[in-house]
Amino acid sequence: MAVEIERKFLVVSNDWKNAVVESKVCRQGYLVTDPKKSVRVRVIGDQGFLTVKGATDGFSRMEFEYEIDLADANYMLMLCDWVVEKTRHYIEHDGLTWELDVFEGLNAGLVMAEVELESVTQHFDKPAWAGEEVSEDARYFNGYLSKHPFSRW
Amino acid sequence: MAVEIERKFLVVSNDWKNAVVESKVCRQGYLVTDPKKSVRVRVIGDQGFLTVKGATDGFSRMEFEYEIDLADANYMLMLCDWVVEKTRHYIEHDGLTWELDVFEGLNAGLVMAEVELESVTQHFDKPAWAGEEVSEDARYFNGYLSKHPFSRW
Repeated sequence: MAVEIERKFLVVSNDWKNAVVESKVCRQGYLVTDPKKSVRVRVIGDQGFLTVKGATDGFSRMEFEYEIDLADANYMLMLCDWVVEKTRHYIEHDGLTWELDVFEGLNAGLVMAEVELESVTQHFDKPAWAGEEVSEDARYFNGYLSKHPFSRW
Repeated sequence: MAVEIERKFLVVSNDWKNAVVESKVCRQGYLVTDPKKSVRVRVIGDQGFLTVKGATDGFSRMEFEYEIDLADANYMLMLCDWVVEKTRHYIEHDGLTWELDVFEGLNAGLVMAEVELESVTQHFDKPAWAGEEVSEDARYFNGYLSKHPFSRW
């Protein structure tokens, strides 16, 4: 079990593109997603993950993540009612790794970046390309986006 | 990934009690259960498991089972809307291990036994204490029982 603490922002310019360290194609689906918990299947690069998350409490959330066989993960994606497709770019900024997601498919047009912190009070420098914070806006949870894609807002 | 093939029967007498090899207390909850898939959290004895199952097709079902940390499993049980409690007894019969579940709580009064097979055509000897087969009766799926306990039928 881990407590996931993250801050999430809409991306307002393309100035991040020169700072990308690594990029991975990501497909993630939800076996269930409701306000109390979610079960996510993720294929990112050549790895598969099964993740159970509890309810969000401000910036933090209980998270249980297990790496699973890639073939299992691909099969389980077919059991998911909703799948989100995106490319995840990893960016180093001020000593922290930011994950910047360029959404595709029905969520195309949405670009978000998040940074994982050790504590809710940890200082971090917000990059210039990061705009409005949406950490606590449930519309920007991937689980919500899977059911209510950005293109239909 | 595994294909789970099992046959399940109502238990009609107590003649199994002398044949028990091992018994474990089991609590299992469902993060989701619908006709297409289920995600089960199980604490059995001192082990925890997270299991994703696909739709049932006759006697068989796709199953992905992962052993997880016991503390994680206990925490995740709290995220489950429905939990089933039972004692699982293991019984050797004619070269196969039967799992006989004595349900508790809201499902008290229900006793079922199942045997896992290698193929749908595999021969097995049905013990005298095993009565009506309920393999394909969705009311006897643990996921259904969690939401619609036996005592309320």
